Amino acid sequence: MRYAFVAVSNQKPQTAITPTRTDNYPEWYLKVIEAADLAESSDVRGCMVIKPWGYALWENVQKVLDGMFKATDHVNAYFPLFIPLSYLEKEASHVEGFAKECAVVTHHRLELKGGKLVPTGELTEPLVVRPTSETIIGASFAKWVKSYRDLPLLINQWANVVRWEMRPRLFLRTAEFLWQEGHTAHATSTEAVEETMKMLGVYAEFAENWMAMPVIQGEKTAGERFPGAVQTFCIEAMMQDRKALQAGTSHFLGQNFAKASGIQFQDDKGTLAHAWTTSWGVSTRLIGGMIMTHADDDGMVCPPKLAPSQVVIVPVIQKPEDRERVIAYCKALKQDLEARSFAGTPVRVHLDARDMRGGDKVWQWIKKGVPVRVEVGPRDIDKDSVFMGRRDKGPKEKSGVARGEFVAGIAATLQDIQDSLYARAKAYRTEHTRVIDSKDEFYAYFAAPSTKHENDPTPIHAGFAMTHFNGDPKLEAKIKDDLGVTVRCVPLAPGEPGTCPFTGEPSAKRVVWAKSY
Amino acid sequence: MRYAFVAVSNQKPQTAITPTRTDNYPEWYLKVIEAADLAESSDVRGCMVIKPWGYALWENVQKVLDGMFKATDHVNAYFPLFIPLSYLEKEASHVEGFAKECAVVTHHRLELKGGKLVPTGELTEPLVVRPTSETIIGASFAKWVKSYRDLPLLINQWANVVRWEMRPRLFLRTAEFLWQEGHTAHATSTEAVEETMKMLGVYAEFAENWMAMPVIQGEKTAGERFPGAVQTFCIEAMMQDRKALQAGTSHFLGQNFAKASGIQFQDDKGTLAHAWTTSWGVSTRLIGGMIMTHADDDGMVCPPKLAPSQVVIVPVIQKPEDRERVIAYCKALKQDLEARSFAGTPVRVHLDARDMRGGDKVWQWIKKGVPVRVEVGPRDIDKDSVFMGRRDKGPKEKSGVARGEFVAGIAATLQDIQDSLYARAKAYRTEHTRVIDSKDEFYAYFAAPSTKHENDPTPIHAGFAMTHFNGDPKLEAKIKDDLGVTVRCVPLAPGEPGTCPFTGEPSAKRVVWAKSY
Repeated sequence: MRYAFVAVSNQKPQTAITPTRTDNYPEWYLKVIEAADLAESSDVRGCMVIKPWGYALWENVQKVLDGMFKATDHVNAYFPLFIPLSYLEKEASHVEGFAKECAVVTHHRLELKGGKLVPTGELTEPLVVRPTSETIIGASFAKWVKSYRDLPLLINQWANVVRWEMRPRLFLRTAEFLWQEGHTAHATSTEAVEETMKMLGVYAEFAENWMAMPVIQGEKTAGERFPGAVQTFCIEAMMQDRKALQAGTSHFLGQNFAKASGIQFQDDKGTLAHAWTTSWGVSTRLIGGMIMTHADDDGMVCPPKLAPSQVVIVPVIQKPEDRERVIAYCKALKQDLEARSFAGTPVRVHLDARDMRGGDKVWQWIKKGVPVRVEVGPRDIDKDSVFMGRRDKGPKEKSGVARGEFVAGIAATLQDIQDSLYARAKAYRTEHTRVIDSKDEFYAYFAAPSTKHENDPTPIHAGFAMTHFNGDPKLEAKIKDDLGVTVRCVPLAPGEPGTCPFTGEPSAKRVVWAKSY
Repeated sequence: MRYAFVAVSNQKPQTAITPTRTDNYPEWYLKVIEAADLAESSDVRGCMVIKPWGYALWENVQKVLDGMFKATDHVNAYFPLFIPLSYLEKEASHVEGFAKECAVVTHHRLELKGGKLVPTGELTEPLVVRPTSETIIGASFAKWVKSYRDLPLLINQWANVVRWEMRPRLFLRTAEFLWQEGHTAHATSTEAVEETMKMLGVYAEFAENWMAMPVIQGEKTAGERFPGAVQTFCIEAMMQDRKALQAGTSHFLGQNFAKASGIQFQDDKGTLAHAWTTSWGVSTRLIGGMIMTHADDDGMVCPPKLAPSQVVIVPVIQKPEDRERVIAYCKALKQDLEARSFAGTPVRVHLDARDMRGGDKVWQWIKKGVPVRVEVGPRDIDKDSVFMGRRDKGPKEKSGVARGEFVAGIAATLQDIQDSLYARAKAYRTEHTRVIDSKDEFYAYFAAPSTKHENDPTPIHAGFAMTHFNGDPKLEAKIKDDLGVTVRCVPLAPGEPGTCPFTGEPSAKRVVWAKSY
C-alpha cells in the first residue's frame, strides 16, 4: 500500500473531497476548486482571484479558441473598459437587460477629507464598466464601415467584463469575469446568420473536442434571448447535478445595434444601408463547466487537451542517497515525453522534485486533476519501467509500464483519457435525459428529484426532459414558476413534429427542458 | 515608375505622412498611428481603441514576454479589477501617488428616473478601478504565504489598468491601458533585489533584441520612484524627438507592501517575518515606443521580430486574364515562405489579393510598416523572380531577386532589417547624447532646442546629457523647473566618479538627463 490516505481498508471508501457530489453538490464544487487551487473569493464582493492552476486552464482555453477564431478570419482588437451612459441608452432592450447589474464610475479622483478617503472630481457623464461591448464597439464600427468593401468586419476581443451579480459563485457567476466577445458586421442578413451559426459551431467543436464536454446546440426561446438580439443560439451541457450549463452563446443581432450605433454602408449600387451584426462569447464560466463535467470525489479532472500539465512525474525517494539517481532519471524521462506531441503541441510535463513525501505529492496532483501521473523509484529504474496512474481511473489503479512503451504511447494514452472523459459525460447525459410525452410525467420528473439529502439545499435533480412544446412564452413562464425549469434550447438537430403535451397544440420539434445555472 | 505617388519628380520629395517628423513631431506621431491603423481615440475621455494592426503588435509583445516570464519560473494569475479604498489606504505613499487619478465606482445599478438613466444602489465602500495591483495582490499573497516553503512566490498578471490622465496621448498616456504586472514575494531582501534586477534585465533584453530599441538600464532618483517602492529601476529609450521614454520599470518594494498587506512567513527556525516583495511592469506604451523609435516620414516601421506580418505579397495584375496565374504563384510563394522560420516562429506572410491598384496596396503596407514587401507580376513569374522592397530602405529602392534565393534568404533578410533598425536607433541616440561637464553648457544644451519650427509647440530638443550629479533632490527639482529636464536614471553600467558641475560636489557616476514622456 503506497498511500497513507487509503491505509484504512474495509471501510466506506474515503474520498479526497468532502462532501462528495451526492452528499452536497454545491459544497463539493467549492471544495474541488479549493483542493485543486483553481480560484478563491476575494474581499471584493463577487470578484474572484483566479489562481495559477485555474488561470493556466484559461490560458489553454484562450490559446485554442484564439487559433480557431483566427482560422475563421477573425482578428483581435481592444475597446474601452468604460461605456458612456448615452451609448447604453441607444438600444432600449439592451439597457433594460443590463441596467440592474452595472458597476458605475462617477468620480475620477480621491481626496483625504477628515482622515477619510472620499471620491471627488465628479464626472459630467457617469461611465459604466462594460457588461458587454456591443454599444462601444458599434461606435467604432460606425466609423470604420463606409462601403460594402469594408465588410465583413470580423473582430474579437479578449477582455474582462462586469455584471453585478447578487448571488456570485466561483467561475459560474462572478461580478467580474474574463471572456472573449466576437463582434461582426455584414452586408446581408444571410451572411450575418451564417456567421452566427459558424461561431456556434466553433464553440460546439471546442466544447466537445477540447473540453470533452458534450453539448446540445440550439436556439433560445424569446425569454432567454440576449437583450437586443433577434435570435440567440447556445451550447448547453449537462453538469453532474443534472442541471444545464449555458456554455456559450452566439447572437444574430439583425440591424438593431447597427441602427442604434449608425453602422451604415454604401452597397455596390451606391445605396446607403444598415449593416447586419452578430456577437458571440464564452467566458471563464467554461472552467466551471469543466469542473462540473469531469471532476469527481477525489477532486479536479482536467481534460488532457487543456490540462496545464498533462503528465506529472513524482520521484519516489526513500533514501537520500537515491535522490540524485532518481532525479536524473526523471529529468531524462521528462525530456523524452516533451519531445512527443499531443493535440498539436509538445506534451506538457511537470517534474515534482519538491522535498516532501511522495504520497502527499501524488494526492495533490490527483486533486489538481493531472491526466497522467508517473511514479519513479529506484526499483522502477532498475527495471527501466514506471508506475503509471490515470486520472480517469481510480487512484489505486496503477500499473507498471516499460519506460519506452510508456513514452512511445503517451499521446495515445492522453487521447484515450480524453475520449473516455467525453464518453462518460455523454453516457451520463443520455442516462439522465428523458423523452416525455405527458404533462403529468413531466411534472413528476421535475417535482421529485431523484437524489435528495437533508443537508443539501439544492438537491441533484432529475435531468433533461425532451418534450414537444407549442412555444408559448406564457406557458414557459408558468412551468418555470411551477418547477423552476426552463427551455434550455430548441435543438438545431433535425426533429419530428408532434403534439405539445401541455396544450395539445402542434409542435415543430422537441425542446430541452432543465434546471439551469 | 511604378507608383503614382512619386510620379511628380524634381520636387521636394513627398512623404506618405504629413506633417513630417521635423515639421511637427507630435502631429506626425498621431498621423503615423492613423495611417498605419494602429489605434484611435474613443468617445470615452482618454481611452483608446486599439485597432487590429496595433493589437497584433501587442499580441506579439505578449507572446514573447510571456515566454520570457515563464522561462524565469513565473506563472500567470488574475486578480480583481476593483480595489476597496481600505486596501489603497494601507500604504501611505502609495495612496498619495495614485489618489489623484483614480476611476471610482460608487454605484452598482442604473435606474430610469424622469426619462434619464441615473446611478443607484450606492456601495457602502467605493471601489477603485485598479491603477496597479500591489494592494489587492498583496491581500492574496498574505493568504498564500505561511512558511518559507511557500516562497518565492512568482506571479504575473496580464490586465487592464486605469489612471485618469489629464493629457492623454495614444499609447503613451491613456486613461485605460493594457499591461503586465509581475508581483513576487521572497524570504530575503537579497533574493528580492535579485528578482528586481533579473526582470529589469528581461525588459532590456526584450527592448533591444525584440523591439530593436536600445535602452539604458538604470535606477530612478527618489523623486521618480514608484509610490511605495524602496528602489525603482527602469529602461529608458531615446525617441526621435530626442526625449526619453520610460519603457519599463522594476521595483524593489522592500517590506513596505508586505507590512501593509500582512505577508508573513515562518522561516526555517519558526520565526515569523515579513516577506520582501517586488513588482515590475510594461504596457501598451511599448507600442508608442516602437513607433517613435522606428517610424519615419512614410509611416510605421515594425521591427521584424514583432511585425504582425513580416512579409506582404502584392500581386501586380494589369490584365484580368493574368489574375489566376499570378495569384496561384503568390499562394505557392506564401507557402514556401511560411515553411521558413525566423526568431523561433514560422515566417508570418500576408497575401494581399484584394481587387485594387497594386500601387495603392504597396503604399498601405509601407504605412503599416511591414518589413518586407514583394511584388509579383506576370513578367516576374516568367523570370521566376520577385521584386522586393525593404521597409528600412527608401520606398523606391526595390530590386529583383530570384525566387529561390529570396525564399532561402528570408530569415537572413528579416534579421538584417532587425539589426539595421537597432543600429540606426543606437546611432541616433549616440549622436544626440552629449557628455557635459559644465553648468553653462548644460543649460545651453537644453535651453536651445536644435530644431525649432514656428508651428510646432513642442520642438525637437537637444537629446540626452550625461553629467555628474551630487544627487540632491532640490537641485534636481530646480533644474526641472528651469529646463523641464529630469534625471531619467542613474545608469547601472559602471562609471567613473567625478565632480557635479552644478555644485562642485563629488559624484559617484554620471547620470542621464533628458526631457521625457
